[in-house]
Amino acid sequence: MATESSPLTIAQLAELAGVSTATVSKVVNGRSEVAPETRAAVEKIIRERGYRRQRRRTAPVALLELVFHALEGDYPIEIIKGVEQVARAHQLTVGVSELHHHHTPGPSWLDGVLRRRPTGVIAVFSGLTEAQREQLTHREIPLVLLDPAGDPGQGVPSVGAGNWNGGLAATRHLLELGHRRIAVITGPDYALSSRARLDGYRTALDMAGVPVDQELIGRGDFLIEGGLAQAHRLLRLPDPPTAIFTCNDGQAMGVYRAAYELGLRIPDDLSVIGFDDLPPMRWAIPPLTTIRQPLTEMAAAAATMLLKLANDEPLPQSRVELGTELVIRESTAPPAAS
Amino acid sequence: MATESSPLTIAQLAELAGVSTATVSKVVNGRSEVAPETRAAVEKIIRERGYRRQRRRTAPVALLELVFHALEGDYPIEIIKGVEQVARAHQLTVGVSELHHHHTPGPSWLDGVLRRRPTGVIAVFSGLTEAQREQLTHREIPLVLLDPAGDPGQGVPSVGAGNWNGGLAATRHLLELGHRRIAVITGPDYALSSRARLDGYRTALDMAGVPVDQELIGRGDFLIEGGLAQAHRLLRLPDPPTAIFTCNDGQAMGVYRAAYELGLRIPDDLSVIGFDDLPPMRWAIPPLTTIRQPLTEMAAAAATMLLKLANDEPLPQSRVELGTELVIRESTAPPAAS
Repeated sequence: MATESSPLTIAQLAELAGVSTATVSKVVNGRSEVAPETRAAVEKIIRERGYRRQRRRTAPVALLELVFHALEGDYPIEIIKGVEQVARAHQLTVGVSELHHHHTPGPSWLDGVLRRRPTGVIAVFSGLTEAQREQLTHREIPLVLLDPAGDPGQGVPSVGAGNWNGGLAATRHLLELGHRRIAVITGPDYALSSRARLDGYRTALDMAGVPVDQELIGRGDFLIEGGLAQAHRLLRLPDPPTAIFTCNDGQAMGVYRAAYELGLRIPDDLSVIGFDDLPPMRWAIPPLTTIRQPLTEMAAAAATMLLKLANDEPLPQSRVELGTELVIRESTAPPAAS
Repeated sequence: MATESSPLTIAQLAELAGVSTATVSKVVNGRSEVAPETRAAVEKIIRERGYRRQRRRTAPVALLELVFHALEGDYPIEIIKGVEQVARAHQLTVGVSELHHHHTPGPSWLDGVLRRRPTGVIAVFSGLTEAQREQLTHREIPLVLLDPAGDPGQGVPSVGAGNWNGGLAATRHLLELGHRRIAVITGPDYALSSRARLDGYRTALDMAGVPVDQELIGRGDFLIEGGLAQAHRLLRLPDPPTAIFTCNDGQAMGVYRAAYELGLRIPDDLSVIGFDDLPPMRWAIPPLTTIRQPLTEMAAAAATMLLKLANDEPLPQSRVELGTELVIRESTAPPAAS
């Protein structure tokens, strides 16, 4: 008999839940044709007592699953490249899915994962609910968050960049050029990465003795459109900024467009610095000064962590942060003498 | 006993090849630990007599494999999106791999596919050798080419765009604006899509009674850098073009850079038209006039064909071409009065 501490087999789960083994099997394998209340009852017992899989641990297909909140822009490709490098070296393939701008997957995504039994899952700029994380844990499918959108959750391994340091470095670069009216366009409020970049901006100003002007803080959404709208607002202020730090590169492209529409020259009339250093940014006109976030390396690090977890190896640390770096190009210059 | 026309089982193959069933099993399952000459001998018999798989046809993991020649720029994301839409609707996941700028996969890629036994393979801007196609055929893994780089091969299903019509429409748009010195920057010579676009350009000029000037045909490589180099050459000709048609959008960005470096304004001093209509092009400064190639829809069409093949349904046609469309933005205008 199973004791409190030993995980249950399908037969034992079926007996405790008062359902057939076929039904338990459907629940643990993520099949959808089970009544919600039955599924909930079985999941509750699994949560309390654990579930011991009978079949071999190795998944039939060696697959690293990568789930994106959205497949938009150059950010996903940089990440796929990094994961693919590690996966290929270990004879795994990379599975890609997207959440169509949601930051938490729905039940059909999770059912698919449970059915496929991948080697592991990397969630990009998204996260899983506690219940979803438990379902993966019970099936021994490891999870790593990459550039998590919100709080990763207690003990969930994650990979990020030195966001606070990047925000600090971007703002300091503008201060060193002589700017004092420095605006920032943030990402969405829920994004911890954006919060950290904003805090770096505040600290840089504070250390330089420049008061933070709330009017110069524009709330963006990490989209070009948001950068465009905020730049129009900022550049029409009675005392407009001479420099704008945008918390991602896409929004910098929105600032470029606003400057073009208003007849302002970059960097003569306005300095712009981004965050990410996506490949096309060196082709922007003028080439964008930005903070490089090593997305491909971050993705490779996440895949490496996932493989360690899949092999039951201990992780040296559950949070890995890769450094960011200032890349100076032609979009920043000293402010025009006024 | 197997007759000439009925495919062989593993046991029959082993007997004919004079090797163990374990060895035949390794060959048909793409495992690498088989001597090359043994593998060749077994493959030869399979080619001549066929191989009958004993296990169920359905792959253990429902996977559509997508192989790219390179994961660069916005082109791959548009394609992943289209395949993911169809895959998700059929509870399949999308596997992504890249050939690091090769246009034909190497043996390790093929071994991986044979081991994974996906529902099917879509090769993007690449192709397989005849021997590789045969290996997939013998394992009943269907293949569809998407935007094939070269000749797809006899009877290989493929999806492309109306490339010739697009080249015609781009050039006609410039002719209608009054341009006569119209240059083109092609893709690489082996790319049939680029050849078709160039032929459309030639025909448009011919129909307008404008002689084709070989000096105005620049051979590019579908990369920004190639567009930049060719634009510098073209714009320094004694009688430079007043308009450039680039056979993809990336090269148009190279032309923008060249114009910036030479102090030319677009469209006042130079009209530019691209090909693809990748999402960032409407954010270029000025927004790029281009020929829209419906990459996401093309990818969805390829995935749908693949599922039909996997279900042994007949394809209405083995070559599907989706239409292209002129998208007029702000990078084209009548030539300056000289």
